[in-house]
Amino acid sequence: MNATLFVCTTCRAGQPVVDGQPVAGARLYTALLESPRPPGLTIAPVECLSACSNGCVVALSAPACWSYVYGRLSQDDANDILAGAAAYAATSDGLVPWRERPLIFRKQSLARLPPQER
Amino acid sequence: MNATLFVCTTCRAGQPVVDGQPVAGARLYTALLESPRPPGLTIAPVECLSACSNGCVVALSAPACWSYVYGRLSQDDANDILAGAAAYAATSDGLVPWRERPLIFRKQSLARLPPQER
Repeated sequence: MNATLFVCTTCRAGQPVVDGQPVAGARLYTALLESPRPPGLTIAPVECLSACSNGCVVALSAPACWSYVYGRLSQDDANDILAGAAAYAATSDGLVPWRERPLIFRKQSLARLPPQER
Repeated sequence: MNATLFVCTTCRAGQPVVDGQPVAGARLYTALLESPRPPGLTIAPVECLSACSNGCVVALSAPACWSYVYGRLSQDDANDILAGAAAYAATSDGLVPWRERPLIFRKQSLARLPPQER
């Protein structure tokens, strides 16, 4: 399945912006790009996922699948995010069994959305 | 455009469940069904949108459009939700100008998701 991991690259995660330094969302995006990418997964930067009070934020979506949004993340979570994204990309409907989700996905869900009508 | 307003009907919104009484999400769903429905909008019940700490919760999605999730809602917000959903359904990309969004949509966004790849 072709899944997309959207990463909010403008998220400050409540931290002050320092001139010349990437914000927390950009650091998370870089960390994700620097890790091995699971098969079938595209990583896409997005400017604002409108979950600013719960940043950093990522979202997973794929055609005909449930979408998920996760928050309160940082660059230190990159490997767990990719493990969760790999499990998601391996499903046909986006529904990963609860115990197979990384802890951050179990505890830090902001929302999920049903599959879109075709 | 055909847009869908998903309503979490299992949401307790942090309130205790009372035998024989519908939970907050079910009351919101009923209130939405009892109001005039904007053209092009389908209202669909969903069991859990995984935003349980911010209930009640609704989501708006449509093909090739940004999706939005809103929280901390109640049955008293039904008319404002439908006004916002009408504005959303009238767009081609899901992006309603900021000032044309009802206050609850400006203040109570939980997340948004980019359009799905086709």
